Amino acid sequence: MIRDFVKTECPEDDVLKERLETARAKLFALQMEIKEHRLPVLVLMEGYGSAGKGSVIGKVIKNIDPRFFKVFTMDKKTEEEKRKPFLYRYFVKIPEAGKFVLLDGGWMGEVTKDKLHGKTDEEEYNKRIHSVKRFERQLTDNGYLVMKFFFRISEKEQKKRLNHLLEDKNTKWRVSDADLWENKHYDKCEEAFDHYLEETNTSTAPWYIVDSKNKKWAELQVLERMVEGIETAIQNSSIAVPILQNVFPLKKMPKLSEVKLDKQIEEDTYHTELDKLQKRLGELHNELYRKKIPVIIAYEGWDAAGKGGNIKRITGALDPRGFEVHPIASPEPHEKARHYLWRFWNRLPKTGHIAIFDRTWYGRVMVERLEGFCSENDWKRAYNEMNEFERELTDWGAIVVKFWVQIDKDVQLQRFTDRQNTPEKQWKITDEDWRNREKWDLYEEAINEMIEKTSTEYAPWHILESNDKKYARIQALKILIEEIEKKL
Amino acid sequence: MIRDFVKTECPEDDVLKERLETARAKLFALQMEIKEHRLPVLVLMEGYGSAGKGSVIGKVIKNIDPRFFKVFTMDKKTEEEKRKPFLYRYFVKIPEAGKFVLLDGGWMGEVTKDKLHGKTDEEEYNKRIHSVKRFERQLTDNGYLVMKFFFRISEKEQKKRLNHLLEDKNTKWRVSDADLWENKHYDKCEEAFDHYLEETNTSTAPWYIVDSKNKKWAELQVLERMVEGIETAIQNSSIAVPILQNVFPLKKMPKLSEVKLDKQIEEDTYHTELDKLQKRLGELHNELYRKKIPVIIAYEGWDAAGKGGNIKRITGALDPRGFEVHPIASPEPHEKARHYLWRFWNRLPKTGHIAIFDRTWYGRVMVERLEGFCSENDWKRAYNEMNEFERELTDWGAIVVKFWVQIDKDVQLQRFTDRQNTPEKQWKITDEDWRNREKWDLYEEAINEMIEKTSTEYAPWHILESNDKKYARIQALKILIEEIEKKL
Repeated sequence: MIRDFVKTECPEDDVLKERLETARAKLFALQMEIKEHRLPVLVLMEGYGSAGKGSVIGKVIKNIDPRFFKVFTMDKKTEEEKRKPFLYRYFVKIPEAGKFVLLDGGWMGEVTKDKLHGKTDEEEYNKRIHSVKRFERQLTDNGYLVMKFFFRISEKEQKKRLNHLLEDKNTKWRVSDADLWENKHYDKCEEAFDHYLEETNTSTAPWYIVDSKNKKWAELQVLERMVEGIETAIQNSSIAVPILQNVFPLKKMPKLSEVKLDKQIEEDTYHTELDKLQKRLGELHNELYRKKIPVIIAYEGWDAAGKGGNIKRITGALDPRGFEVHPIASPEPHEKARHYLWRFWNRLPKTGHIAIFDRTWYGRVMVERLEGFCSENDWKRAYNEMNEFERELTDWGAIVVKFWVQIDKDVQLQRFTDRQNTPEKQWKITDEDWRNREKWDLYEEAINEMIEKTSTEYAPWHILESNDKKYARIQALKILIEEIEKKL
Repeated sequence: MIRDFVKTECPEDDVLKERLETARAKLFALQMEIKEHRLPVLVLMEGYGSAGKGSVIGKVIKNIDPRFFKVFTMDKKTEEEKRKPFLYRYFVKIPEAGKFVLLDGGWMGEVTKDKLHGKTDEEEYNKRIHSVKRFERQLTDNGYLVMKFFFRISEKEQKKRLNHLLEDKNTKWRVSDADLWENKHYDKCEEAFDHYLEETNTSTAPWYIVDSKNKKWAELQVLERMVEGIETAIQNSSIAVPILQNVFPLKKMPKLSEVKLDKQIEEDTYHTELDKLQKRLGELHNELYRKKIPVIIAYEGWDAAGKGGNIKRITGALDPRGFEVHPIASPEPHEKARHYLWRFWNRLPKTGHIAIFDRTWYGRVMVERLEGFCSENDWKRAYNEMNEFERELTDWGAIVVKFWVQIDKDVQLQRFTDRQNTPEKQWKITDEDWRNREKWDLYEEAINEMIEKTSTEYAPWHILESNDKKYARIQALKILIEEIEKKL
């Protein structure tokens, strides 16, 4: 691709100047349209060392109000980032609706450089290409404009620039060993870059190769492309995209109506079992910590099904330094302004840690579906997006355990009434709970579809029969212990 | 991909029946929406021999009014098709707006089988993958719904079905050698199919793998996917898609205002030259015919620039059995209802033949652009689409020669006036010509952009200075001869 790309010709000075002025003015004007249309714009700058990515970013942002953009330079990973999935540091930086994010270097750099330096083998490389394609598709499917620029300079030009920097004491520090290595192995790098560009050049997020031998010319190319890209994206208000076929191995699951809810546990047995299981879980937590295995526990269930009490029995067994509970309510405005999985990417545990989600990303296919908070196309697409999300997690090495806490309608009524009649429990019951209860059948249909479509072999749902809360707690502990033991 | 694909489970008989009824009713209802929304739907059925593609097509079309669909079985190529570019037989079969086309086998089959049987090497295979991706992108970018189904059965199941067919005298003929070969080399085929699916699984035209062990179940999978796909597509009225960066080598071209139009030719020289050049062209025509090289000559130019007379001097040198002139007016309704390149694909010459287009596909970026017959996104995208189109032609082995016949505004006025004042020429001048003349400057801008963006090294524009028509004719012959000689 890079070689197919034709050396463009830099226009004459006066034309260049005129076109630059036009493009700058257009971008300036477009920022307000972006805001109005709530378009999130992610601009990725990749390419050769010293090709001038940073300098062009500096030029581009001059045309945008500082409130509307963020720039991130993707240097070395922090210790924190090293303990997160490969895509983490990129996903958490996606822009919110109506704003720009410009990335100086990004996932392309990471994937190609790790390959070039033998840090990833062919298999791992291909897995990452897959991850990247899914990531970019998820963004564009969810209304993001993703613009990818590759800054190209020739081997000779790069050498010249590096030497120039090296000659001056004040700029010497800017030349990294990696830059020198790249120049020395230019052809090999070009091949690796080219392969990557080819593999990830999709019609919704295509690559633009920037001829970077002249700085103003590079700026112009980027500006004109950005203007064109934004104008195009603004025309598409809300697009419906094809619902992809599931490609993940699914487990066969029962419908909720088929789940028997008559199981109970004796008070004595409960306490004995609880002690035993919590002790075991505590041991396992240490082992997970030592082996740096992250665990993600996802709780969903009917109102008053007993999620809270169930979670307590898990956390009661854990070292508080090694876990976090995330209660998930409706998204905050800054969360709602981003891809719906963003707030969950942001709450992922570090390796060796446990994150417990009290309600989860599955809100997309339950409350958001039923209340119309997202379009039909959005929630239909979400099953696959969530399977992909969880696949990233398990590929990273995480254990993902998902609980559906199940009760029947009568038990819910009884618990609601009980809450209403007990002063210290009244805060737990709201009008919304009653309204949701009225939609029980619709919810049940949505939940059945969710369980059917997202019970992958690597992250299946576990249905906890919770008419007897104690029985459900013991079950949750047993399942969690079993899943952890499988992995250790 | 095929292996990632999970064996689905066929529902129980009663559920299957119910879902089939629902899906059939939905598809039946959707055909009118498709018509209303003018959505063209291309359904591609690919997969293993005897997996039941044909049988499912038979079931699908039962729900569609015969006026709204066409089915094509892609058997062996006809002699005609063999003398056309690889994509020809597929492109000419694309549906018109508001209608279905179902293809029983298609380009996937051709590409993978030619690879499996060593008819194409790695390089040719990759070129075809590129062609296919461009083809499908061009369709979806232009508002087509492209649904791709791959019918999968196991090696064992395929063997069983083939044996079953072979046992009966009446069905024996349905088993081809290719089917038997496929079953014998099942793993190798699966690998080739898998590679192809992976390479062409785009987010706008994704693959759906159909578990085909049970016929009714296969039908249901296809119907449900089709309903979903159509419902999704209908939500997108007119989408703006990213304008791709040019990846083709371009020649630097002058602006029209830089073209000197003072060149003339003496009457005597003209006749001598004409005779000589026509004789030479005649010889070359024979050679082209023998070597089976197709030639495509594209004429564009200002009204009254002298295109007609110029073309006559070319055809005057040619054997009438070996060329065709295509005068291109506004598209007919059945042409307008399809991808704008369709009518040109339909008029491609056979190998060894010459096709001359009097006005061309470039109408998209001139009259259609200026008169608003297509959207801005449409014509901006078209430069690349036409470069891709011509690349298909030259990759196929064709010589593509494009002439822009240039005159200045004064000469046009003089010729218009002359036409109006000469009774036998009056039919050549219309009100529209006068109206177009008023838009000269806008046209000039569009033409400059067209010449700049579509003068690829493999199919550049040649500007014919035609203030002196005779000079232009000699130039055209010279250029044509030179281009042909380069290739021979």
